[in-house]
Amino acid sequence: MTDLVTFGETMLRLSPPEGTRLETTEQFDVRIGGAESNVAVAGASLGLDAAWLSKLPSSPLGRRVVRELRSHGVRTGVAWADADDTRLGTYYLEHGGEPRGTNVIYDRADAAVTTVAPEELPLGVLDEATTFHTTGITPALSEHARATTATLLERASAAGATTTFDLNYRSKLWSHAEARGTLRDLFEHVDTLFVARRDAEAVLDREGEVVEVAHGLATDHDFETVVITRGDHGALALHEGEVYEQPVYEADTLDAIGTGDAFVGGFLAQRAIGGDIDAALEWGAATASLKRTISGDLAVVTREEVERVVEEGDGGISR
Amino acid sequence: MTDLVTFGETMLRLSPPEGTRLETTEQFDVRIGGAESNVAVAGASLGLDAAWLSKLPSSPLGRRVVRELRSHGVRTGVAWADADDTRLGTYYLEHGGEPRGTNVIYDRADAAVTTVAPEELPLGVLDEATTFHTTGITPALSEHARATTATLLERASAAGATTTFDLNYRSKLWSHAEARGTLRDLFEHVDTLFVARRDAEAVLDREGEVVEVAHGLATDHDFETVVITRGDHGALALHEGEVYEQPVYEADTLDAIGTGDAFVGGFLAQRAIGGDIDAALEWGAATASLKRTISGDLAVVTREEVERVVEEGDGGISR
Amino acid sequence: MTDLVTFGETMLRLSPPEGTRLETTEQFDVRIGGAESNVAVAGASLGLDAAWLSKLPSSPLGRRVVRELRSHGVRTGVAWADADDTRLGTYYLEHGGEPRGTNVIYDRADAAVTTVAPEELPLGVLDEATTFHTTGITPALSEHARATTATLLERASAAGATTTFDLNYRSKLWSHAEARGTLRDLFEHVDTLFVARRDAEAVLDREGEVVEVAHGLATDHDFETVVITRGDHGALALHEGEVYEQPVYEADTLDAIGTGDAFVGGFLAQRAIGGDIDAALEWGAATASLKRTISGDLAVVTREEVERVVEEGDGGISR
Amino acid sequence: MTDLVTFGETMLRLSPPEGTRLETTEQFDVRIGGAESNVAVAGASLGLDAAWLSKLPSSPLGRRVVRELRSHGVRTGVAWADADDTRLGTYYLEHGGEPRGTNVIYDRADAAVTTVAPEELPLGVLDEATTFHTTGITPALSEHARATTATLLERASAAGATTTFDLNYRSKLWSHAEARGTLRDLFEHVDTLFVARRDAEAVLDREGEVVEVAHGLATDHDFETVVITRGDHGALALHEGEVYEQPVYEADTLDAIGTGDAFVGGFLAQRAIGGDIDAALEWGAATASLKRTISGDLAVVTREEVERVVEEGDGGISR
Amino acid sequence: MTDLVTFGETMLRLSPPEGTRLETTEQFDVRIGGAESNVAVAGASLGLDAAWLSKLPSSPLGRRVVRELRSHGVRTGVAWADADDTRLGTYYLEHGGEPRGTNVIYDRADAAVTTVAPEELPLGVLDEATTFHTTGITPALSEHARATTATLLERASAAGATTTFDLNYRSKLWSHAEARGTLRDLFEHVDTLFVARRDAEAVLDREGEVVEVAHGLATDHDFETVVITRGDHGALALHEGEVYEQPVYEADTLDAIGTGDAFVGGFLAQRAIGGDIDAALEWGAATASLKRTISGDLAVVTREEVERVVEEGDGGISR
Amino acid sequence: MTDLVTFGETMLRLSPPEGTRLETTEQFDVRIGGAESNVAVAGASLGLDAAWLSKLPSSPLGRRVVRELRSHGVRTGVAWADADDTRLGTYYLEHGGEPRGTNVIYDRADAAVTTVAPEELPLGVLDEATTFHTTGITPALSEHARATTATLLERASAAGATTTFDLNYRSKLWSHAEARGTLRDLFEHVDTLFVARRDAEAVLDREGEVVEVAHGLATDHDFETVVITRGDHGALALHEGEVYEQPVYEADTLDAIGTGDAFVGGFLAQRAIGGDIDAALEWGAATASLKRTISGDLAVVTREEVERVVEEGDGGISR
Repeated sequence: MTDLVTFGETMLRLSPPEGTRLETTEQFDVRIGGAESNVAVAGASLGLDAAWLSKLPSSPLGRRVVRELRSHGVRTGVAWADADDTRLGTYYLEHGGEPRGTNVIYDRADAAVTTVAPEELPLGVLDEATTFHTTGITPALSEHARATTATLLERASAAGATTTFDLNYRSKLWSHAEARGTLRDLFEHVDTLFVARRDAEAVLDREGEVVEVAHGLATDHDFETVVITRGDHGALALHEGEVYEQPVYEADTLDAIGTGDAFVGGFLAQRAIGGDIDAALEWGAATASLKRTISGDLAVVTREEVERVVEEGDGGISR
Repeated sequence: MTDLVTFGETMLRLSPPEGTRLETTEQFDVRIGGAESNVAVAGASLGLDAAWLSKLPSSPLGRRVVRELRSHGVRTGVAWADADDTRLGTYYLEHGGEPRGTNVIYDRADAAVTTVAPEELPLGVLDEATTFHTTGITPALSEHARATTATLLERASAAGATTTFDLNYRSKLWSHAEARGTLRDLFEHVDTLFVARRDAEAVLDREGEVVEVAHGLATDHDFETVVITRGDHGALALHEGEVYEQPVYEADTLDAIGTGDAFVGGFLAQRAIGGDIDAALEWGAATASLKRTISGDLAVVTREEVERVVEEGDGGISR
Repeated sequence: MTDLVTFGETMLRLSPPEGTRLETTEQFDVRIGGAESNVAVAGASLGLDAAWLSKLPSSPLGRRVVRELRSHGVRTGVAWADADDTRLGTYYLEHGGEPRGTNVIYDRADAAVTTVAPEELPLGVLDEATTFHTTGITPALSEHARATTATLLERASAAGATTTFDLNYRSKLWSHAEARGTLRDLFEHVDTLFVARRDAEAVLDREGEVVEVAHGLATDHDFETVVITRGDHGALALHEGEVYEQPVYEADTLDAIGTGDAFVGGFLAQRAIGGDIDAALEWGAATASLKRTISGDLAVVTREEVERVVEEGDGGISR
Repeated sequence: MTDLVTFGETMLRLSPPEGTRLETTEQFDVRIGGAESNVAVAGASLGLDAAWLSKLPSSPLGRRVVRELRSHGVRTGVAWADADDTRLGTYYLEHGGEPRGTNVIYDRADAAVTTVAPEELPLGVLDEATTFHTTGITPALSEHARATTATLLERASAAGATTTFDLNYRSKLWSHAEARGTLRDLFEHVDTLFVARRDAEAVLDREGEVVEVAHGLATDHDFETVVITRGDHGALALHEGEVYEQPVYEADTLDAIGTGDAFVGGFLAQRAIGGDIDAALEWGAATASLKRTISGDLAVVTREEVERVVEEGDGGISR
Repeated sequence: MTDLVTFGETMLRLSPPEGTRLETTEQFDVRIGGAESNVAVAGASLGLDAAWLSKLPSSPLGRRVVRELRSHGVRTGVAWADADDTRLGTYYLEHGGEPRGTNVIYDRADAAVTTVAPEELPLGVLDEATTFHTTGITPALSEHARATTATLLERASAAGATTTFDLNYRSKLWSHAEARGTLRDLFEHVDTLFVARRDAEAVLDREGEVVEVAHGLATDHDFETVVITRGDHGALALHEGEVYEQPVYEADTLDAIGTGDAFVGGFLAQRAIGGDIDAALEWGAATASLKRTISGDLAVVTREEVERVVEEGDGGISR
Repeated sequence: MTDLVTFGETMLRLSPPEGTRLETTEQFDVRIGGAESNVAVAGASLGLDAAWLSKLPSSPLGRRVVRELRSHGVRTGVAWADADDTRLGTYYLEHGGEPRGTNVIYDRADAAVTTVAPEELPLGVLDEATTFHTTGITPALSEHARATTATLLERASAAGATTTFDLNYRSKLWSHAEARGTLRDLFEHVDTLFVARRDAEAVLDREGEVVEVAHGLATDHDFETVVITRGDHGALALHEGEVYEQPVYEADTLDAIGTGDAFVGGFLAQRAIGGDIDAALEWGAATASLKRTISGDLAVVTREEVERVVEEGDGGISR
């Protein structure tokens, strides 16, 4: 059994040093990031047997994605594309404090993953997966990626896995209208939906109190669980008719990218070891807060650290 | 036409990494900075056709000043001095948080600019300038620099440019009394004065409410515009008898050096495209707040970023 | 008059530290490079009034190309493309000593320059150019780029400029056969050809002694000058029937990329100030040898340094 | 006369860059640290003639400890151990913001200092010392270290030095019970005790109001002076029956390690020049607050900076 | 089946930047290294399914060993020791050019691996291994390590694996005499011996022509294969009575550490895919030469690169 | 007794990373250097009790000179100048391979040392010095520096010290003629002269065979010892009528600056422990060759390393 299988794009992440701009920097910090592999890394860090499926160019850059994921304990099931015909998606990340903000520039056109087809992937892993996770970014990448997402959700669901989906709307990839139609179809095979409050409103046309939004979504799409995140206001879950709330743990934020994925990874890791929704929300929030103190998309944390945050809320000096 | 011509000294800026002291650092971050070229860079970044006049040693260090200014779109009109007889002014900058503070050590004696004479400079550019800007640092550098400042202000004024002047008192260069006399003479050809509240009091002997200070200065020196900056309390402008106020935009300050110059650059850039005093103060404040998030003296910003700060006040994650 | 106008693609250049691999590096050195802008920078460094024409995405990365070229004194005539629809070509450079070698990975598909059209460019600059230079890389990028290359060569030639062309065959962009046909057509408007010995053989089907190759090329395409480079064996020029030879100056090679472009830039800079072919070859070889000691594609050198190499051949300690 | 002699272990300190984890970092910042040498450095920085006694391996790493201490003006009296049989203690320091906290991993087993014996040390320096200082870390290192601590305290006391002792409980080295017994014996020759409120409670079994704790300790162990530190709540001293209080100076904390040692160093430096307890507490608190803005264990500060903090409380921009 | 299982110690490797000394450096490059894991990484890089067995402290530093090996595709079978009672061996590496040389300082006392016992390790992997590899370093670490080495060699041999052994004498760990006795016992279960010429002489008392040495060793210990390495003079193998010779491929050496392990890894990788001794020696030599161009102990190379070296001998610029 | 006292200027040394130019670098490596303190550091590293006399600005930059020298074991006798009126001399060092060479730019005008007077220095140290050393750079700095050099040489000589002098001609400070006159006067109190062959010719008008040059100098100025260095051709000494020759030890040169000072330091260190001229030349040459492998002006070496070079000539891997 694999506890968690995810599917999606992982990109090269290039960012200049603090206080330096993309227009002038002479140096990039080089990392990788992608919503679904971020979730897999958070899950694996917390003890899950996790795997990630995708398509990559057969190049040093493609191989570095696999290397880094493996280093965090994530197994990889990769379709390798000819390096001459395709590329690795890249994103440029410029951290600025306020009022400059954080600027993300995507350069992901023609990435290998846009040509992915189900038959290229080692789908057998789905048949033994406890949970299958993907996000609303993947179907927005290309027609191939959308169709493959649908196939994988369907197959995982059929094989008995819990299917989880983080809406993660990206305005640079598709319009609200495009997203809405596609997502509604995909939701048919989704058990658990993670969605930001503002995406629920903008993409799914859900207005009103957050509890109503959760009920509406659960009812209309027959979700077993709906988790709505509200930034600094914490998260709310609706599970089998019951409502659960979770505040955020305060954090000194060094790098906010990947916070949402860390939340999902923490949530799923606790669920996988049999925790209830309350405990899962706590782990999600704790993993997310730890992530904010770490450079890069990835939640390089331990179960002990997450548990300490849940118990004590902070760190101090341990010596 | 050149929108903005500035004149003054630009120095090499050397600073150790955060948390490290000048006494022990093994590394310097190398940049350039100077009040007048800082203003030119801010202006050029916001769309102005800007030029900077000065004198530099004919050495790699002198040439790097020109290179960096050109990279930001500033044209340079430089008198080149023999590298064997002169040097590039240098300043050492050690950033410390509170209570250590920020320490600036100037090493600017005998810089090439201290021997500048008007006839060495391409003064023709003044005849077609919309605005000419300099500061109270330049006349404090040397007798030659003072005389050249006077000549340039006079010529620019005679040619029809708006002349703007940032008082920028530097106690390490001259006394209040020395500054006072020199500045009063120079004010004869100045249309717009930028002055910090505390310099107005200490150097120009102006006490009382800030509005009264502004009125007093405008009346006594026949300024068209007086802009008084008050740190966190924002800026106040008196223009043709009317008072305008502008709060600061909050910022996560990484490097406060150059904030005032960014303010002036933003103000002048908006004026150059026909904006009124209110709009100019907004651009000034927004450019200044963005500058604080960027390492170095220079406001490497875009017009879009400044407009967004004016409209929204903050950044968030853009993706 | 502009001494030198070049046209072509400039890419972002990303390289890991020495001894580190693309698969594992956590840091990239960030620079720019492109054969034609490399030539313009070498020319401008040696005193030419140089300009570069191209198309770039309207993004921070596109703007950094302009910034860096401007810093080296190159004027830029850029068609700006919508940043959402296009990208900046990138190349990854991994320096390895022997036997690993240097590995270049291009990621230039869909770069903005592939959609360039003559009417987007400020072609007026061609009418006043002394020399127009481009390379065999540009027509290989796309049909648009090929057609624009042809138009620019024709227009520059018609306006009286000397047109120079560096064959620079790139096997990853087109086949020998594709290159051969296109280049023959372009040669109609070319006065000076720079070509590596091995490209003359592989692409242009020229075998035999290098002098015969030069004569054959000059005769068949009516070139005024043919310069054939032979790696460590130096260069040979055929100009108006006369043969000139130039050995290489030995260098401690830190970064070989851009050596050929530095050679062309040095050659053209000497020609522009009236030097004969012998002197131009000397400057070309000297500029190339200096380039090898400098990280990055660009020959950041001075005329004095080039002249010293020509006279003395080496550096020593100057103090 | 030597103003201040300290005795204890100094370790190599290795820390990854901010935001990076020990599990993944590719780089360590290399420094040294140890409570007693930290105190000596703070004292020497503020003008004391200070010396440090210890045992080190005769290796490059051992020598770097001496080098760095000497650079800060601390004289060293070192017993050199065979580098093949022993090692330099090391500690790994990972700074995390909240809620991750700061993680210290000690790797100090079998450090050379654990075999130290009094006769290896240049004890003559004690006979001319004004103050002798050590901490509760040293006797916890090994039986040899404990016995040597006792010998040195006794000898210094006998020679007329003021003996000062910072309790500094380290739970990874010994239990509360082990510490309690050993410390009580050592206290016999101690004049001044520095102790954190929480250690007084946990290790010395002192509960109740802080003033009572101080009185109880002073009475039971016949201390001339007891200084109790209470984190953000400042310090309290009981000296010859009188109580003195000192709030903390606020600081932008970059590196909190060494704050307590800086406090002791500042306190002792002021006492050494004849200051009263109030003035000593002020210097202690000011040195501690400055230390927090500096990377590393060491308070690289000047007397002028400490005095400015005492007078003004903050830094601003000095130029 | 696992192609290759190795057993031994992996250490943290800390090295200052080029030209900087351990006594003064402020920065360490952080990597891992150990003869047996180096071999596993080289093997995995060239396509083997490789695993490494050892014991590590349950700390961030212990986990980073696993992370890094996993990133290179090596599976790990680790006995985890309590982090409070044990440590990760460390080695300090200072690269100096001639005449300074390269200085290695080991700090490996009390490393977790010194307490390893067979029953802590997942020995089942040996029953399905094609090849089992260890070195003469491991039995020198401690009595536990020696006994475990013997047990693993015996079990692997009994299970049908080819057992390979690199003598790798380390004078800082044991004397020639100690090594000789222990190794002779271990050789009973070894099929293939790798040994440096000078170790064969000093440790195994073998003098004379290298071919004789090989024959003598093969005869006395009943080795199937003996490979003798001779630095720049290349390697010689004796296999089933036949002699094979292999020169080195020339390399620009950036980091010589790990060259021998890369040789073994390349040799074993070729043997594992059925290559004969000639081909295995070629792969060994090629992998070793590539390693020399890469910082760190590890041969981060590809099969294509190794094959290119075997075919062409060098790299050039590939673009 | 102090074994070695030196007197001269020490500057801040700023150098860009390898392959990067002063015109474009964003980073400087920060170190210190000065011929006389370089000699003191080499001497102290090899076991001498060494001191250095000079004048420095009372600033963080001045203090860092003292700190770094102290870290290498050199005691300092410094006259502190008001930081507002003076500065620390600086030199910019750009390493280039051939043919670019190494470029040194001095920025030493108005350094504190140019106002030095004997009465500011702790001259008592001269009365107990075994050797006093200075160079031909110091008298070239200013009239004050020249007069102080004369006074110190005279006093040291009178007190019985061996006085040693390295000619070290710097063309940027004075002409051959100016140097010649001044040096002849100073030679009156010099016992040992170190001089480069080419300076002996250019500055001292000595032509002919090197042995004749040595004899001529010894005779004319009554030197006890003359050491003539000839770059790669090694050194020759004439001592009490006998000639000694010493070849160079080959080195992988990373940083050639300071090689000559390391030679002098090694020579004097051997003489101080009673070695004869042959042994002193060996230590000089060995220290110089080791210095070439180390970044910075300073010979951070040990006596063991120097002895190993003398015995074996090279390094290899020590482990």
